[in-house]
Amino acid sequence: MSEFTISGLAEALGLSFEGNGDLTVTGLAEPSTAGPWQLAVAMEQHFVDELAAGRARAAVLAPGADWRKLGLEAAIFAPRARLAMAGLTRTVAGATHPPHGVHQSAVIDRTAQFGPDASVAANAVIDAEVTIGAEAVIGPNVWVGAGVTIGDNARMGAGTAIAPGSRIGDNFVTHPNVSIGGDGFSFVSAEKSALEEVRETLADASAGEPQGWIKIHSLGGVVIGDDVEIGSNSSVDAGTIRATEIGHGTKIDALVQVGHNARIGRNCLLCAHVAVGGSAVVGDGSVLGGQVGVADNITLGAGVIAGGATKILSNVPAGRAILGYPAMRMADHIECYKALRRLPRLLERLRGLEKEVSKRTKKH
Amino acid sequence: MSEFTISGLAEALGLSFEGNGDLTVTGLAEPSTAGPWQLAVAMEQHFVDELAAGRARAAVLAPGADWRKLGLEAAIFAPRARLAMAGLTRTVAGATHPPHGVHQSAVIDRTAQFGPDASVAANAVIDAEVTIGAEAVIGPNVWVGAGVTIGDNARMGAGTAIAPGSRIGDNFVTHPNVSIGGDGFSFVSAEKSALEEVRETLADASAGEPQGWIKIHSLGGVVIGDDVEIGSNSSVDAGTIRATEIGHGTKIDALVQVGHNARIGRNCLLCAHVAVGGSAVVGDGSVLGGQVGVADNITLGAGVIAGGATKILSNVPAGRAILGYPAMRMADHIECYKALRRLPRLLERLRGLEKEVSKRTKKH
Amino acid sequence: MSEFTISGLAEALGLSFEGNGDLTVTGLAEPSTAGPWQLAVAMEQHFVDELAAGRARAAVLAPGADWRKLGLEAAIFAPRARLAMAGLTRTVAGATHPPHGVHQSAVIDRTAQFGPDASVAANAVIDAEVTIGAEAVIGPNVWVGAGVTIGDNARMGAGTAIAPGSRIGDNFVTHPNVSIGGDGFSFVSAEKSALEEVRETLADASAGEPQGWIKIHSLGGVVIGDDVEIGSNSSVDAGTIRATEIGHGTKIDALVQVGHNARIGRNCLLCAHVAVGGSAVVGDGSVLGGQVGVADNITLGAGVIAGGATKILSNVPAGRAILGYPAMRMADHIECYKALRRLPRLLERLRGLEKEVSKRTKKH
Repeated sequence: MSEFTISGLAEALGLSFEGNGDLTVTGLAEPSTAGPWQLAVAMEQHFVDELAAGRARAAVLAPGADWRKLGLEAAIFAPRARLAMAGLTRTVAGATHPPHGVHQSAVIDRTAQFGPDASVAANAVIDAEVTIGAEAVIGPNVWVGAGVTIGDNARMGAGTAIAPGSRIGDNFVTHPNVSIGGDGFSFVSAEKSALEEVRETLADASAGEPQGWIKIHSLGGVVIGDDVEIGSNSSVDAGTIRATEIGHGTKIDALVQVGHNARIGRNCLLCAHVAVGGSAVVGDGSVLGGQVGVADNITLGAGVIAGGATKILSNVPAGRAILGYPAMRMADHIECYKALRRLPRLLERLRGLEKEVSKRTKKH
Repeated sequence: MSEFTISGLAEALGLSFEGNGDLTVTGLAEPSTAGPWQLAVAMEQHFVDELAAGRARAAVLAPGADWRKLGLEAAIFAPRARLAMAGLTRTVAGATHPPHGVHQSAVIDRTAQFGPDASVAANAVIDAEVTIGAEAVIGPNVWVGAGVTIGDNARMGAGTAIAPGSRIGDNFVTHPNVSIGGDGFSFVSAEKSALEEVRETLADASAGEPQGWIKIHSLGGVVIGDDVEIGSNSSVDAGTIRATEIGHGTKIDALVQVGHNARIGRNCLLCAHVAVGGSAVVGDGSVLGGQVGVADNITLGAGVIAGGATKILSNVPAGRAILGYPAMRMADHIECYKALRRLPRLLERLRGLEKEVSKRTKKH
Repeated sequence: MSEFTISGLAEALGLSFEGNGDLTVTGLAEPSTAGPWQLAVAMEQHFVDELAAGRARAAVLAPGADWRKLGLEAAIFAPRARLAMAGLTRTVAGATHPPHGVHQSAVIDRTAQFGPDASVAANAVIDAEVTIGAEAVIGPNVWVGAGVTIGDNARMGAGTAIAPGSRIGDNFVTHPNVSIGGDGFSFVSAEKSALEEVRETLADASAGEPQGWIKIHSLGGVVIGDDVEIGSNSSVDAGTIRATEIGHGTKIDALVQVGHNARIGRNCLLCAHVAVGGSAVVGDGSVLGGQVGVADNITLGAGVIAGGATKILSNVPAGRAILGYPAMRMADHIECYKALRRLPRLLERLRGLEKEVSKRTKKH
């Protein structure tokens, strides 16, 4: 187990510390469960209150906190709590080294090429003409299809499947059972369908024997930039005649679907269960909360912030904060839903008023 | 194929029967398709009505049903229909024995330990220092990461992936392609982001170049109690510095996401496509319907019942029945949505009233 | 790389062409990025406008387009754009041949039977008594459980898992990490539960220690018709005592859940993140948009069209176009939500009217 000194951690994170800088810790813990060899993380007040319940001798605190009064021997001070967490967790995580080498049960085509220091786990399958950069860590049961290119420093979770036609940048991270490059969901009927009719009229469809669906094949593949991370069981579909695109620095949570031809910008966050429809565009720096839906062919400008479960059925300008189904400006949504809760009472008031007015009409 | 006598089944289930207890059946069927060797399940009236269409000679019926009049030779009587189904299906399912033994293609680290009677299917991968209890049935292409502990009687479906840092109780069941212990979705920007701004103001974000996202690593793993079952393609993310927790007896459907640091209580039901956000708490005995969302950091008390697609954006007290987006008390929701449907008509009435009042104001 | 002449493509698609029919192309592209050997697809005006930016010499255009004026050497004319895309993409896709033969690392039970020309990729696992038809292309890490039957021309993506009890027709397509035949989510408590109480009363539940959940096992398997395609990471659960059913020609997108005992009709489209509850019925030719939910035991008639994120909590007659949560007729929904946005203003108007009426009441 790795050991870290308080002074060393503070220096690595660019933070200040006070007290015994030579004190060593072996990991991080919440204050109430921290042992004497763990660094308690107590940057918010409710965690500070829990310090007494644990046995930590050192903690990460908000600047100005009185560490001596809290009974600590040392403290690191972090002005931006979650940024400090990023540094602390990276430092501790970095101390555990991934396995190196290629497991003998991995099935690697002789034409596949790896950069130096690749690690391929048991039962992974790497097909012909694949190119993967340096220091890849490929999990068990991963599949990388023929001709796929992946940059340096990839870490791919167990069961990840990357179909042919995928071109992926550096520092690519997937968690288990991610699917990249499955065919897009794109079908057409020979004659005009009830669906097309409803899209035009928004009225009920005329009856008729349902037609069969003819597949539009996906030839466009997927292009993923650098520094992209994709959560467990998420799926990115291939484009039709051009690639589905995910920009540099975008992070995707678990169980997210990115449809064919979609273009996700740079540095976006797509939270769990987001569904981005076919040919939709999500601007740079947008944040889509959990269970957000973006309909087919919709365009979101840069920096759109969509709260949890927002359903986006029309275009959204840059910088807009939205919520609801269908999406409204966040403040409008809150106003409308407050009003909605008063609606049954409002109906009563309207009825009362009608009665009053009608009574006085009769009087006249 | 196993055979069961009517008297034997009734005794095993603690139920009464009438008629020929020696009659044997080989399985269960819906009444209209039941053959002479199948036990028809007809505890609800619409199934009783279908008995004549099939060829069953015996059935499970509600207490007091006139089995002779229905043309049956025997009947088992069940006062609680679905409880009887649990017993009947368990009895029939139990008669098919899973394969035993370890397939030669499984890749098992020499430091992994199994209890007696373990079964490991083809191409499963069990890493170093794994401990798995007695009578495990591990499906094909399953991965169990280094150091994971799993109790007795585990049944893990094909493609299940369990990352290092997972500690799991007895009677653990997963269906195909479940992912346990992927990294949490936890990122921070160096400077205050548009997302943080919007969270404070609920107004549109000010423009600006999107910042990159810095990862907060997941060191806390996952702790799962006894008697937990997880459906196909669901995901439970690892916690940050403490474990994501799932309590004893909780059942999780397909395509569910449990975020990092979440605490799911005991004996909960999470239906398909539920998303529980990071650090959310779900109290014991809560039931979340399909597509329910629980936002980050939200706490639900014990026994909360959330109807299908409820989106929970604020804390919920114990025992509350809720529905809607955003979540309201179930009865309030129904009232509000009835009113919403009348809203266009209400607007007309208001307009009429305004005209009337204005007309009479002029008259005066 | 395959080459196609303009005249040959037009003939194969049953379309007319003008200009140099001997011109050859090697693939398809969007107009702005098309090279001289690619056929530009420009059936919509905004794509026609982009032709000048690319280097295409030939294009697919809407009938009547002036190809000479667009600087092209040849053009194919397509009266139904997406139908032409189906034909074009199929032609190009068909020119790449899948691998043939059985990889030596695949684990195939000696009692499994394949039709002619089967291809089984690395590390696939095919269990006892499986029957798969002609020309199957089975991806890496696929699992097909004991006794499963699959028709001719199956194409199964990496990591697809098919549990025992599944019977599947011809032309079955799955994308990566699809799960078929996991157990249904079906549990009962020994005594009446808070959930059952709430279902009856729609009121908050009475307190009480949460009961444990007893499993109703899934014995019914899954029956899938011909020409069914299922997207990445989707799940179809097994039925209880009869099969979960998916009809001929139905197409299912990524991350879709079909619950136990559900009956999906013929030629339906289920878009991404759709959840169909247990024992629900979806009529022939229905189209469920992304993130649509269908509650347990609900029946949709034939040809129901549900817009994105519609939550269906009660039965829907055939041919109905619906939207919203809870689902309304599409036109009603749009009307109600327009009114909802005016609701805060409406409240003010009502207040003003009340004041006016009350003032004049006092005057009298």
